[in-house]
Amino acid sequence: MVKQERAARTRKILVDAAALEFDRDGYEGTSLARISKAAGISSGAVTFHFAHKGALAGAILGQGRAAAREVLEKVAGDGADPLGATVRLTLELARLLESDVVVRAAARLAREQSRTLPGWYCVWLPTVRQWLAEAGAAGLLRPGVQSDVLATTVGYLLTGLELRIRARAFGPEEGAADGPAVEQLERIWRLVLRGVATDPPA
Amino acid sequence: MVKQERAARTRKILVDAAALEFDRDGYEGTSLARISKAAGISSGAVTFHFAHKGALAGAILGQGRAAAREVLEKVAGDGADPLGATVRLTLELARLLESDVVVRAAARLAREQSRTLPGWYCVWLPTVRQWLAEAGAAGLLRPGVQSDVLATTVGYLLTGLELRIRARAFGPEEGAADGPAVEQLERIWRLVLRGVATDPPA
Repeated sequence: MVKQERAARTRKILVDAAALEFDRDGYEGTSLARISKAAGISSGAVTFHFAHKGALAGAILGQGRAAAREVLEKVAGDGADPLGATVRLTLELARLLESDVVVRAAARLAREQSRTLPGWYCVWLPTVRQWLAEAGAAGLLRPGVQSDVLATTVGYLLTGLELRIRARAFGPEEGAADGPAVEQLERIWRLVLRGVATDPPA
Repeated sequence: MVKQERAARTRKILVDAAALEFDRDGYEGTSLARISKAAGISSGAVTFHFAHKGALAGAILGQGRAAAREVLEKVAGDGADPLGATVRLTLELARLLESDVVVRAAARLAREQSRTLPGWYCVWLPTVRQWLAEAGAAGLLRPGVQSDVLATTVGYLLTGLELRIRARAFGPEEGAADGPAVEQLERIWRLVLRGVATDPPA
């Protein structure tokens, strides 16, 4: 039992250290040797837990997707209208991307490895597309606003925000002037909603 | 003279082949050996023209930045109002990202190598920030619209679009349903402008 706990702890240390390396340098730019060094765990112990780099990437991707799914379920259960839920979901995801390096690494790895729709975004973006279609049908969007164009816009905004958060995490301090990503996204939503919502917040 | 022309042609073939590799797989995921194979040029000839991978990346970055600067100067000389010029510039840049793999590779390489503001975006995004501030001062933006928030939004939208264009260039056909990137961005602008512009287009 103690042995199992120790193994779980070692795996967590490895996943966290690997996430930082993958997030900063991408899949191709990261080696098991560097992860081993960053985690302070011998390369023998690393390969005991994760036979190859792809196995570690897979663990990170799984954890990052699970975190997004959890946020999605929480927001979906909130009972907000579909436009409000969309805003709320993206803010929660921005918070996640900013605070959790595993989630951020998952978003990057999924993009680098799939080449189609990034596997992290496809956990939640189809639901946003559906919610916005419902918002349109419920008269929450102004006449003429195409819900699918708005959904695409949301996907692009989150992508831009993700890359900005990453650049800021590893770059010099200058970007800190933007403030937290969530507040930045709140300001962007206020700007977008006054154009698309029937009843925009003040 | 003929010899110089031949050298220039070889360099162009190499830059184009390398851009495709860098755009698809990033700096770390690309080797001189693969570029040599893709270009159909011996590795001896490759290193004669570009001593190392970084030299090729530098040439691509320079060419991609020059292309963005050219578009910027053309739009700046058009005499449009600052809000119209911003829209026009982003559409021209989207066209460039979609049609020119060297520009797209430059945007990716700059981001991977700098970790601060991506070096391709900083060719033109500061000008957008300035134009939008001027648009605000000229009363072209609705009261309450913060021009710097709009500028950040523009940067994020282009980033998302860039990544989408790249995924589509190398992924399966499915994404083609979105239509050309320029048309997609036009639809997004219509949606954004109705919220921010004093006098949005119909």
